[in-house]
Amino acid sequence: MVLILKDGTSDSNIMELVEYLDAYNVSVSVTKGEHTTILCLVGDTSSVSQESVQSFSFVEDIRRIQEPYKAANKKSHPEPTVVDINGVKIGGGNFQVIAGPCSVESEEQIIEVAKAVKASGATLMRGGAFKPRTSPYAFQGLRAEGIELLLEAKKETGMPIVTEIMSAAHLPLFDHVDVIQVGARNMQNFELLKVLGKQDKPILLKRGLANTIEEWLMSAEYIMSGGNKNIILCERGIRSFETATRNTLDLSAVTVLKEKTHLPVIVDPSHATGIVQYVEPLSLAAIAAGADGLIIEVHNNPQKALCDGPQSLTPEQFDNTMKKIKKLRRFMETEI
Amino acid sequence: MVLILKDGTSDSNIMELVEYLDAYNVSVSVTKGEHTTILCLVGDTSSVSQESVQSFSFVEDIRRIQEPYKAANKKSHPEPTVVDINGVKIGGGNFQVIAGPCSVESEEQIIEVAKAVKASGATLMRGGAFKPRTSPYAFQGLRAEGIELLLEAKKETGMPIVTEIMSAAHLPLFDHVDVIQVGARNMQNFELLKVLGKQDKPILLKRGLANTIEEWLMSAEYIMSGGNKNIILCERGIRSFETATRNTLDLSAVTVLKEKTHLPVIVDPSHATGIVQYVEPLSLAAIAAGADGLIIEVHNNPQKALCDGPQSLTPEQFDNTMKKIKKLRRFMETEI
Amino acid sequence: MVLILKDGTSDSNIMELVEYLDAYNVSVSVTKGEHTTILCLVGDTSSVSQESVQSFSFVEDIRRIQEPYKAANKKSHPEPTVVDINGVKIGGGNFQVIAGPCSVESEEQIIEVAKAVKASGATLMRGGAFKPRTSPYAFQGLRAEGIELLLEAKKETGMPIVTEIMSAAHLPLFDHVDVIQVGARNMQNFELLKVLGKQDKPILLKRGLANTIEEWLMSAEYIMSGGNKNIILCERGIRSFETATRNTLDLSAVTVLKEKTHLPVIVDPSHATGIVQYVEPLSLAAIAAGADGLIIEVHNNPQKALCDGPQSLTPEQFDNTMKKIKKLRRFMETEI
Amino acid sequence: MVLILKDGTSDSNIMELVEYLDAYNVSVSVTKGEHTTILCLVGDTSSVSQESVQSFSFVEDIRRIQEPYKAANKKSHPEPTVVDINGVKIGGGNFQVIAGPCSVESEEQIIEVAKAVKASGATLMRGGAFKPRTSPYAFQGLRAEGIELLLEAKKETGMPIVTEIMSAAHLPLFDHVDVIQVGARNMQNFELLKVLGKQDKPILLKRGLANTIEEWLMSAEYIMSGGNKNIILCERGIRSFETATRNTLDLSAVTVLKEKTHLPVIVDPSHATGIVQYVEPLSLAAIAAGADGLIIEVHNNPQKALCDGPQSLTPEQFDNTMKKIKKLRRFMETEI
Repeated sequence: MVLILKDGTSDSNIMELVEYLDAYNVSVSVTKGEHTTILCLVGDTSSVSQESVQSFSFVEDIRRIQEPYKAANKKSHPEPTVVDINGVKIGGGNFQVIAGPCSVESEEQIIEVAKAVKASGATLMRGGAFKPRTSPYAFQGLRAEGIELLLEAKKETGMPIVTEIMSAAHLPLFDHVDVIQVGARNMQNFELLKVLGKQDKPILLKRGLANTIEEWLMSAEYIMSGGNKNIILCERGIRSFETATRNTLDLSAVTVLKEKTHLPVIVDPSHATGIVQYVEPLSLAAIAAGADGLIIEVHNNPQKALCDGPQSLTPEQFDNTMKKIKKLRRFMETEI
Repeated sequence: MVLILKDGTSDSNIMELVEYLDAYNVSVSVTKGEHTTILCLVGDTSSVSQESVQSFSFVEDIRRIQEPYKAANKKSHPEPTVVDINGVKIGGGNFQVIAGPCSVESEEQIIEVAKAVKASGATLMRGGAFKPRTSPYAFQGLRAEGIELLLEAKKETGMPIVTEIMSAAHLPLFDHVDVIQVGARNMQNFELLKVLGKQDKPILLKRGLANTIEEWLMSAEYIMSGGNKNIILCERGIRSFETATRNTLDLSAVTVLKEKTHLPVIVDPSHATGIVQYVEPLSLAAIAAGADGLIIEVHNNPQKALCDGPQSLTPEQFDNTMKKIKKLRRFMETEI
Repeated sequence: MVLILKDGTSDSNIMELVEYLDAYNVSVSVTKGEHTTILCLVGDTSSVSQESVQSFSFVEDIRRIQEPYKAANKKSHPEPTVVDINGVKIGGGNFQVIAGPCSVESEEQIIEVAKAVKASGATLMRGGAFKPRTSPYAFQGLRAEGIELLLEAKKETGMPIVTEIMSAAHLPLFDHVDVIQVGARNMQNFELLKVLGKQDKPILLKRGLANTIEEWLMSAEYIMSGGNKNIILCERGIRSFETATRNTLDLSAVTVLKEKTHLPVIVDPSHATGIVQYVEPLSLAAIAAGADGLIIEVHNNPQKALCDGPQSLTPEQFDNTMKKIKKLRRFMETEI
Repeated sequence: MVLILKDGTSDSNIMELVEYLDAYNVSVSVTKGEHTTILCLVGDTSSVSQESVQSFSFVEDIRRIQEPYKAANKKSHPEPTVVDINGVKIGGGNFQVIAGPCSVESEEQIIEVAKAVKASGATLMRGGAFKPRTSPYAFQGLRAEGIELLLEAKKETGMPIVTEIMSAAHLPLFDHVDVIQVGARNMQNFELLKVLGKQDKPILLKRGLANTIEEWLMSAEYIMSGGNKNIILCERGIRSFETATRNTLDLSAVTVLKEKTHLPVIVDPSHATGIVQYVEPLSLAAIAAGADGLIIEVHNNPQKALCDGPQSLTPEQFDNTMKKIKKLRRFMETEI
């Protein structure tokens, strides 16, 4: 940790701060220039409260050096984490495609889509039972019944299922769900994260609409510090000033995460763009950038979809896109 | 609702869409130009699913005309809402200042601060018991015990208290709390909003870090549609590229809200800027812009604060600022 | 300047860097922790190229301590700058309102508006002759003829005029203009800034749509380093995700600038919001936040305006708003 | 164009507006609902001033239907534009890599880098002579001399050169330059764009830091409306809240542009990320997303670079990356 003091800070103030820091298990060195005094703290500075130090009125600025995340940090765990979902592995060279409708609507729908995406090569099925909608008047999902239908589809096809949780109170309903998704709007619902850290199902943690990569890793850290290490990060577009796409897909985040963390990273081009025809090229781009997987919306009848129709591929479109996904993924593995 | 069709849309496609819309209780008129066809829907279009319509491949764009919020809409309720908190009124010409520490730390601290801010003219007391922190390793608040201490301070001073909820499961602990705060990170925690709509304590609803004013009003709508009409909106800065302040205070939001909704709007200059010396000028600016109140962080010993020290006023600073706040508020009421 | 080295940097690498820095007139101290090594540079570090240092592969991060702006820095010039425009002073307690149409359209228009705003209390007149328009097909301003008409209005009313320059090649046309405006889109047109630094007319420097306060001060620095110290900064809203207003007015920037620089700061609520009814409350908010002036669009016939009609006040609206502006300004000077 | 009128607009107001629109060559249809009246304008609405219409106080909102760009619009020119730079073609299936240092520093440097990047397969050379720097105290480029050195390197290697212009006054110096670059900060320097539209060298038009895709195409339109149709668009990252990368690379923009315009689109991963190790994966991602080319910074000695060292590849790194670029590009052409 580096503390920069204001121009003109007196020696007695410097002493006061050094003594304050004495209470912590860190060593402090002081560098004095004509205008600036700099304090360098080395050792385990995680116990030093940045906010308390900043409240000394003569502290101009503070710079943390250690990344604030530990369990998620690649430095502490250089090998990539492989999340194993009943035998379907993600991370560490294992690439998977999760596909399915935005929301579960009926038994026929979810089973038809599940069979179709499985036939095309998807290995996990997604489908929303609890739906976070901006409007209280919009379809809120089939909720408990939606999970039942997903389990039907799982029985029918054998595919593990991924579905979103919106409240810790609903956790008992997720007993037979394979991966629990935390949506963008709940990325900093810390009470929910804590609960999810104390159970052992893998978590698909979506990036918040306006959250930095560091904040995202800190949310993973909430889950990991509870004991659950099985986290899949999912980039799904951030909010910017651009309105041509629903969100702005940040593929650099994939490259940053590959350097900073051992957790697998997948990409959701459907929510990122909100527009069917951009899903395929950005799926391919995500693979080339090094993503460990994709999550793609597929609906058997997008016009009748109760949500997110405009961004859903038909099973035929998905099949066509999957052919390219598989080819490119094989090429990247063998040739690049 | 206005639908714009793609260039070259065939008459049979137009007919198909018009027939589809027939199922809804709206009237449709078709305007055909050389390149463009436009459909205007009038009547109650709230039942028409925008997403389903957008899935017709020949629909280029859709434009809603009605604002999607109803209960929060000034058109449906032209008189300003006055939220009454045990006799302390906010809105409709009633201006209040809420003050207190970021987090409750001890009985001495909260009672000392409560007495001080009351003496300076604050009429409601704030203090965090449950604290949403980016890091799982940071102080998470005294939680249930923090609420007990707030209630002590309330008994001691008679001031109603405002404190944040982070999970619907904690609601029973809020029985004697006067105003329940929903923090920025939970603005779109829809399951929590639904629960809060079904109880009757006033809600202080902070704007999300990257949420539009419309999304914010839709979150108010979630609460109101459950039956609870007592909502105070709180602008606390949005996320932008600027790093000189912690967030970017959007005072235009106050002027927009005054036009769009009847709900009272207050401003939090402490979280918006994160820096003590900007709190006073922006408090005054908020008053001049028409805010119905302020929420300001005050700590008896900012250097020892367990969170947000750098943005907390001391009781002396707060007292000095309150003098100006009261003067300006009186001036705005009588002279402008 | 603080350099943070990567975990595991060898002693010989540290020596290599220390020797490299030896060429500069700075003193270097090295603090070694178990994982981290920190180098503190004190002295005049402005000659040390941050980019060259960052290219040493074992440098993890660099932190400048000195603000990169010098002439604009309040530390180097604690007294507020007062810009004197033919006797009309701005800054250091002098508050002015600049008013006029978005663009000059005809002699009648500009003279009518000039007389009206003068009668209401404006002390400088604005009017666009060269207009930066997103579309090449939109009205581009009357250009040289527009400046002629502004000079007519100046002759008629005696008010100094402010108008925008879009190319250094047009500078000779600005001979009788009183204040040269640099628009948001040209805030980082460095070649233009250099030319304006070498002439002596005051410059009204608008903030770029997505520029930080520090970048803005660096643009002022470009002008000042050429010799021209007469700069008025103008906050006009930044680009964010919010679409309810044309831009997001950043009034915190006023408070930040008051701390960082001695240059006067004014606010443009017309461009910031783009909506007539928000201009008055945000003008008042700007005054309360400590701005040194306002620039407001006024048009005698907004419906016929060739640009920015929706954000222009009528002379009657402006007169009404000016009454409040004058009252509040007097109150702030005498009572706060 | 669609006009939405405010609730309660009187029939006489509607008539007034319809008569006003009569002056334009458009046909108007009126749809009246209980609360809303909608006017649809079809025909050539480009002459109708949106701002004038919006100034009618009873107009609530306006929605343009036609895209505001014409020459750049794919609808008006379905075939992809192929820009031919002395035989090196970009667009319409032709993919090129532009490489070279951020700034030209010496004859040895530029010739060494030029030979190296050519040997690795780059087909155009970049190098900055005029450098837009945030600080007036930073190296501003060798300017005229830099262009001389680029021309030396061109003579030596036969590679066409790309370099940035910062002022129309410098145009004569660009006589032997092959492609003129307009930097992000000048994307809306409209006077410069107009001048570049009247000469016939190809233009590399970078996206502004905070400009929408539509604004970017409007800037292309400025150049094209002057007569110059040879424009290469270059995505180089936009400004967002994320600080882990220098900018946020918006690869969705490539997919949007492929749908909206016939102009070629290239990607600059060096400026987008600012970090060497992210350049390769994002180059590959750009290819997979459908880009027509890449522009990559290469320096023979990044530690000694006078600018942007941290984001420059060494010739060896570039050679290694180019092998992958060529493989992937071939794969995309033949297999996808």
